[in-house]
Amino acid sequence: MKKHYLLTPGPTPIPLEVALKEALPIFHHRTNEFVTIYKDIAEGLKYVFQTKNEVYTVASSGTGAMEIAVTNLLSLGDEIMVASCGNFGDRWIKIAEGYGVKVISVLVKWGKVVKPADIERVLKVNPNIKAVYVTLTETSTGVVNDIKVIGEIVSKTNAVLVVDAVSGLVGQEFRTDDWKVDVVISGSQKGLMLAPGLAFIVLSDKAWALAESSKIPKFYFDIKKYKKSYGVNETPFTPPVTLILALQESLRLIKERGLENMWNDYKLLAKAARAGMKALGLKLFGEAPCNVVTVACVPVEIGCRIVKILREKYGVSIADGQGDLKGKIIRFAHMGYIGKVDLLVGFACLEMVFAELGVNIEKGKAVAAVEEELLKA
Amino acid sequence: MKKHYLLTPGPTPIPLEVALKEALPIFHHRTNEFVTIYKDIAEGLKYVFQTKNEVYTVASSGTGAMEIAVTNLLSLGDEIMVASCGNFGDRWIKIAEGYGVKVISVLVKWGKVVKPADIERVLKVNPNIKAVYVTLTETSTGVVNDIKVIGEIVSKTNAVLVVDAVSGLVGQEFRTDDWKVDVVISGSQKGLMLAPGLAFIVLSDKAWALAESSKIPKFYFDIKKYKKSYGVNETPFTPPVTLILALQESLRLIKERGLENMWNDYKLLAKAARAGMKALGLKLFGEAPCNVVTVACVPVEIGCRIVKILREKYGVSIADGQGDLKGKIIRFAHMGYIGKVDLLVGFACLEMVFAELGVNIEKGKAVAAVEEELLKA
Repeated sequence: MKKHYLLTPGPTPIPLEVALKEALPIFHHRTNEFVTIYKDIAEGLKYVFQTKNEVYTVASSGTGAMEIAVTNLLSLGDEIMVASCGNFGDRWIKIAEGYGVKVISVLVKWGKVVKPADIERVLKVNPNIKAVYVTLTETSTGVVNDIKVIGEIVSKTNAVLVVDAVSGLVGQEFRTDDWKVDVVISGSQKGLMLAPGLAFIVLSDKAWALAESSKIPKFYFDIKKYKKSYGVNETPFTPPVTLILALQESLRLIKERGLENMWNDYKLLAKAARAGMKALGLKLFGEAPCNVVTVACVPVEIGCRIVKILREKYGVSIADGQGDLKGKIIRFAHMGYIGKVDLLVGFACLEMVFAELGVNIEKGKAVAAVEEELLKA
Repeated sequence: MKKHYLLTPGPTPIPLEVALKEALPIFHHRTNEFVTIYKDIAEGLKYVFQTKNEVYTVASSGTGAMEIAVTNLLSLGDEIMVASCGNFGDRWIKIAEGYGVKVISVLVKWGKVVKPADIERVLKVNPNIKAVYVTLTETSTGVVNDIKVIGEIVSKTNAVLVVDAVSGLVGQEFRTDDWKVDVVISGSQKGLMLAPGLAFIVLSDKAWALAESSKIPKFYFDIKKYKKSYGVNETPFTPPVTLILALQESLRLIKERGLENMWNDYKLLAKAARAGMKALGLKLFGEAPCNVVTVACVPVEIGCRIVKILREKYGVSIADGQGDLKGKIIRFAHMGYIGKVDLLVGFACLEMVFAELGVNIEKGKAVAAVEEELLKA
């Protein structure tokens, strides 16, 4: 009978009208019915990615799409740059090095953002760099990188820019084509308000040129197979039909609300969440906070307990820190199907947990701060 | 308002009690709730695979698991045998050759089954063969290979036996451990009565020894990551939570009915379907017909039209032939959540389509033949 409130940076809650699509009778994927849905989804994905290029859907977690963006662009011994500011940025390094790619890592301290000037400098010194990998919103630290400026820099070189928009898509302003991003990958369980199980990738012409000469072996993740099938409204392997049906509905909801409106919605939620954290007496973690998750520092001795009690007593799930930040930060998501009322719920329960833990807070103050910001809009 | 009847060899219909699980509120995968489900599923999967070894669940189509069974056991230049009798057997060759593995292909004409004696002979002549890849039920032709005998042969050598049980699991008697099979892969959308999106793999100790020395690079499909996470009831990447919830329910249904009972159920359906085809005046295609799909030869001039009219007029989906068999055979599935009544529906509609196409048939005769076989049980 416990009621659950999911405020974690993925999976995120799923609207019931989307979730119910998953329960509809399954049908065969080599039919006109599927082609109609497929075409509709193709247009919807172009819209959320803000691109004129084809967006491919793959049955895998988001990491599968990251792997596609490595193994399809490169060959053994190729040189790339990974500009990382957290856990998900670091994953690019692990994947690429595993495939024998030479990685020049541009690392910043967790909580900081990637400096576009560093990317420019490293690209100048290393003209052989074939691709630059960077994360839009780094949910391990709650920051957002300036992809627009980075896109401008990379577009003037021979390198392609690859962006991990798994957590940032829909939640944070992002324009693939206008910002000159060559490759974007994402997943289903964040801004797209779906269950996990689908990954997405889009490639520019500049990226396709690299893909043509890539020599790393691949089969299931061979993007050329997906491109070929896309051309005839098919998928190279059996697609997760129920997730695809749900995707069609979530894309419809996003279009109905409008992507720019959604970017602004999450911007407001982020502003309110930051005000709430401050009112709780917490220091925000990280420069350039993103709009999809708010990260705050908590006293180490109560860090893990906050998350645990919140979940066990109130059914409210937020996230703890990852790696070295475990127990030191809390991460409160406002991506996907998380709205104003969820924020009020989360902060009210946080107040109760803080009080229970003996932290000296004024009850109602954080909720009031959230209300105030939300009312400004 | 059209009613659909899915009688294709995957995707197959999903019981509503399973499908509705996909619509339940999503929850986080790093929680005690998920661990409880995960452990339950672990036991259920061991049961359907008839193994004491760990069965790993991967977010991908079945082909992803095939790739795992290639890239995790082998290294560049290794020698393997693929004994193929159809489209899905041939896929092993494509995957392995793409990774620079030397493939000794033992091919039989489509419709025939792999001869265990051929495998024995080729293994003797090529003692360096590290693995033998074979398909349990080859849905492109409707035959079943004698895995028990093949397992006996391969187990006496240094090679491991890898079986594609994507379409055969649950539908056809199959005993991983008793039959000395080292690696089995499967998918969610056939005998397990789920939507597509999950793949499965199990490895014996003999296979793990190979996996330890494999040098083909991999990341998302690195089975060691799955083994490590399995040990702590986790998944290396975000799992498709809704599909996993549905899997728990389908495993419960299978356990309730009993695996051996299910094997017998499909055996009966297959017998009835063969009788129905014969009563329609069709010749069965292939020796050693399997229990999950019945394949019959049809006059080439009407082959494609049968499938098309059946779907468009009556909402009944069966499958056409693949590759060279396109238009020459029809494939009528009885796997997963397809039962006696579905068979009656399928054959009654086939009779109507045949009559419409001007084929000289006696209306009701095929249905009668199906009824007769079903009543014998």
